[in-house]
Amino acid sequence: MAIPDPLPNAQSPQARGNGCRLRIHRVGIDTYQEPIVYLRADSHVCRAEGFDALSRVELRLDGRHLVATLNVVHAASALPLALDQAGLSEAAWRSLGGSEGDSVGIMHPAPVESFSHVRAKIFGHAFTATALRAIIEDVVAGHYSAIETAAFIAACASERFDLDETIALTRAMVEAGSQLRWESHTVMDKHCVGGIPGNRTTLIVVPIVAALGVMIPKTSSRAITSPSGSADTMETLAPVALDETRMRRVVEREGGCIVWGGAVNLSPADDILIRVERPLDLDSDAQLVASVISKKVAAGSTHVVIDLPTGATAKVRTAEAATALSARLVEVGRAFDLVVEVMPSDGSQPIGRGIGPALEARDVVAVLRNAADAPRDLRERSLRIAGRILEIAGIAAPGAGASLARTALDDGRAWHKLQAIAEAQGGLRTPCVARYRHEVTAAHGGVVFGIDNRRLSRIAKLAGAPATQTAGIDLHVRVSSPVAPGEPLYTIHADAPGELAYALEYARRQADVIAIDRP
Amino acid sequence: MAIPDPLPNAQSPQARGNGCRLRIHRVGIDTYQEPIVYLRADSHVCRAEGFDALSRVELRLDGRHLVATLNVVHAASALPLALDQAGLSEAAWRSLGGSEGDSVGIMHPAPVESFSHVRAKIFGHAFTATALRAIIEDVVAGHYSAIETAAFIAACASERFDLDETIALTRAMVEAGSQLRWESHTVMDKHCVGGIPGNRTTLIVVPIVAALGVMIPKTSSRAITSPSGSADTMETLAPVALDETRMRRVVEREGGCIVWGGAVNLSPADDILIRVERPLDLDSDAQLVASVISKKVAAGSTHVVIDLPTGATAKVRTAEAATALSARLVEVGRAFDLVVEVMPSDGSQPIGRGIGPALEARDVVAVLRNAADAPRDLRERSLRIAGRILEIAGIAAPGAGASLARTALDDGRAWHKLQAIAEAQGGLRTPCVARYRHEVTAAHGGVVFGIDNRRLSRIAKLAGAPATQTAGIDLHVRVSSPVAPGEPLYTIHADAPGELAYALEYARRQADVIAIDRP
Repeated sequence: MAIPDPLPNAQSPQARGNGCRLRIHRVGIDTYQEPIVYLRADSHVCRAEGFDALSRVELRLDGRHLVATLNVVHAASALPLALDQAGLSEAAWRSLGGSEGDSVGIMHPAPVESFSHVRAKIFGHAFTATALRAIIEDVVAGHYSAIETAAFIAACASERFDLDETIALTRAMVEAGSQLRWESHTVMDKHCVGGIPGNRTTLIVVPIVAALGVMIPKTSSRAITSPSGSADTMETLAPVALDETRMRRVVEREGGCIVWGGAVNLSPADDILIRVERPLDLDSDAQLVASVISKKVAAGSTHVVIDLPTGATAKVRTAEAATALSARLVEVGRAFDLVVEVMPSDGSQPIGRGIGPALEARDVVAVLRNAADAPRDLRERSLRIAGRILEIAGIAAPGAGASLARTALDDGRAWHKLQAIAEAQGGLRTPCVARYRHEVTAAHGGVVFGIDNRRLSRIAKLAGAPATQTAGIDLHVRVSSPVAPGEPLYTIHADAPGELAYALEYARRQADVIAIDRP
Repeated sequence: MAIPDPLPNAQSPQARGNGCRLRIHRVGIDTYQEPIVYLRADSHVCRAEGFDALSRVELRLDGRHLVATLNVVHAASALPLALDQAGLSEAAWRSLGGSEGDSVGIMHPAPVESFSHVRAKIFGHAFTATALRAIIEDVVAGHYSAIETAAFIAACASERFDLDETIALTRAMVEAGSQLRWESHTVMDKHCVGGIPGNRTTLIVVPIVAALGVMIPKTSSRAITSPSGSADTMETLAPVALDETRMRRVVEREGGCIVWGGAVNLSPADDILIRVERPLDLDSDAQLVASVISKKVAAGSTHVVIDLPTGATAKVRTAEAATALSARLVEVGRAFDLVVEVMPSDGSQPIGRGIGPALEARDVVAVLRNAADAPRDLRERSLRIAGRILEIAGIAAPGAGASLARTALDDGRAWHKLQAIAEAQGGLRTPCVARYRHEVTAAHGGVVFGIDNRRLSRIAKLAGAPATQTAGIDLHVRVSSPVAPGEPLYTIHADAPGELAYALEYARRQADVIAIDRP
């Protein structure tokens, strides 16, 4: 049944002649995962469709169209809808781009043809490059429902998803979005696989290497499930939502930038897939590799240094897993002439002290300004990454990169460069400080033997990060720190007393987030 | 992080002390696929969780609990919610079973441990019986989100899902629901794989074989995506929502029954899985077999005859597919001491004339009453199936079943038995007739060479079936019928002029639903 079935709204005789029309109504419900259309159960559209669980509908407005999942509303519902109204969730509203009361056509969507390739893969056939291109195009066009996306992710997570398929998936993801091109034949990039709160080396590495003449047009992510993404932290220091033209102007002037990748539409499929991968916890190596490499290729990078933290509460938990992932990152990069260098690192605890946008920015600025109390671990890790970039770019001899980077940091050039980049992006800002704080102290003395990245992140989020820039955690201890009974372990920062109480309530039940040995 | 994270509602200081409380509010939104909880974006719960796409929440009320997906509502939403209210979708409301305004606790659900087995299967490991049992228990408890269910279905659809896994899945599905036990050592059952409108042999086979002394406690389904299920058709003749006690009383008295399986909770996982399988069109042989066999084993059957229609617009489309499916049905049945006999049949067109509950019931009654105009195909197919059941039960010699069945049908014993069963189930009813009808006629003369089961079903649904019992289609031609220009092909039945117009609008665009050769 490839023929779309028009579903006429037969409420009024005159409406029947030109097909079914409904008036759109923004209902202000955020469903994130997929666009939802709300229709009255007793409308004609629903009387035919109401018993189809998960049924999909297509709305058309001025040549634009939207495929969405149907939710049915009863006449006595708390959500008031007229018989000829189609309520749109926020995702549906954004996607269709109409105005309140606009008249739309509603019909059955054509079956998603590319899903037959997903079925074939599940039944044991390999994906072809053509198949993956068709699937990714449909994903980006919003034609896949959440359950179809989940089935695709399951198909890609199979251990039978091989190198060729990973390369084809990466290429399809690159081609589905914008692709930046730069004049320079060496365009450096960096990336961190994530899971470590406070790991904001980007904001230090970029100004160091840009100050030394390396081109590094960095696009970063906002937080999805973490208390801050690099773009969120940078946003406390400067605007980051630059379009391609403005981004180019910054890079031409300063040799580097730190902007939000979402604004320039790089590998948009990744953002859609990741919202289903995360809750499923099904981000296989292949998907992680396609995600990372597609963003870098789309950004026009020629070289990328990837920080790969490994630890019990990091994203990558064992050395074996790190080795396998590194190999695939390098292989797939090679298919796109992207030189990938992976630097394994310690993922056992947060980096720096702050967790949350403004607190992380404070650490970054402390390192760049060579403050006496700047976090050493953040400084050292940044120098290591910057040094490797300088070596790859041919600015420093092998083994001499870190010391060159140190010079540019110590003599203030890096701090000067970050300020210049921030000005070029729209003006340097000073991060604010939260109004409410609470110290969490050690119940007993001893030595810290473990810090849980994941639960610390959760406390920071409960306190309001990343939506509240100043919210988060200030960590006072590290693994191996000796602590006395009652000594502060970390301070929760929040901008409202309720949020502080809320984070505290959770923190109180998680006494072992900072695990202390009894001596 | 196996520790559930309580999410306190810190709106009022006194509420913080005993954790987070929200008042439940039924919002009257039907989301079918999974329970949804609506919370204000500016509530404390959401300020920490709002950026987690697809985040899951757990509600607790008096020892009961519900795991649901979160949708976020803005302060200015068309759906009015207070900061301390949790809006519940219909599925969530039914599942939690509280009253308006009841105070519930809200928290992060514990991770669904059994999903790690789904991940392991996707990564290439076989499912163990223990793993499948844990998964199915969680599915039935409502712990799986739609996307997790989709990933599980994808894992089961893999060609590496073998016979042992199919048997283990079937067993897990049986054990997750009620299991009927009968005194008799021969308990007959029948089943049809589906996809053929009007194929209501159950209502004829059951009274024939019961009249001849065979025990046949038949549990049937309601329609999910079709215009009528056997339970819907039977419901126009008698009540079908009988609990186990009342069902037993009917079977003890009459030797058979035709009741709705949903009321006796047989293999409840099947009903949940099917709502995700259908839209994905990923019902592999393994899943179909587990679905069918689990229902029969749970119903306490010892023998089942399965009608397997094959045709271009039926569920099973080729003879090869029918053979492979038959083999697996028999093998899996054997693991449960269930004797399975598959009878392949013609699936090229509907059976009988009526499509929709009351119209199908009319055909059934015509056959049982030996009316002159009773549909021959429905009669013959029913006799074939009943005959085979009589042979298997040892009531008729091999090859003599159909003629014995014919005797019981022709002499009125079957009709008498159906009336007795209907009385025992709560009283015989007479199906009504629709108020509005419209004949669809042949645009040109010729010979019918094809009838599209799927699009005819859709027209019947647009006219109101199965919710409106009298709605549907009356088919006047069959494959190979000669037709003159303007001759009636089928009549659409509806109970409201709007619905009739609505079905017609669609029918008008589907002229080739009944394909006519130009002579």
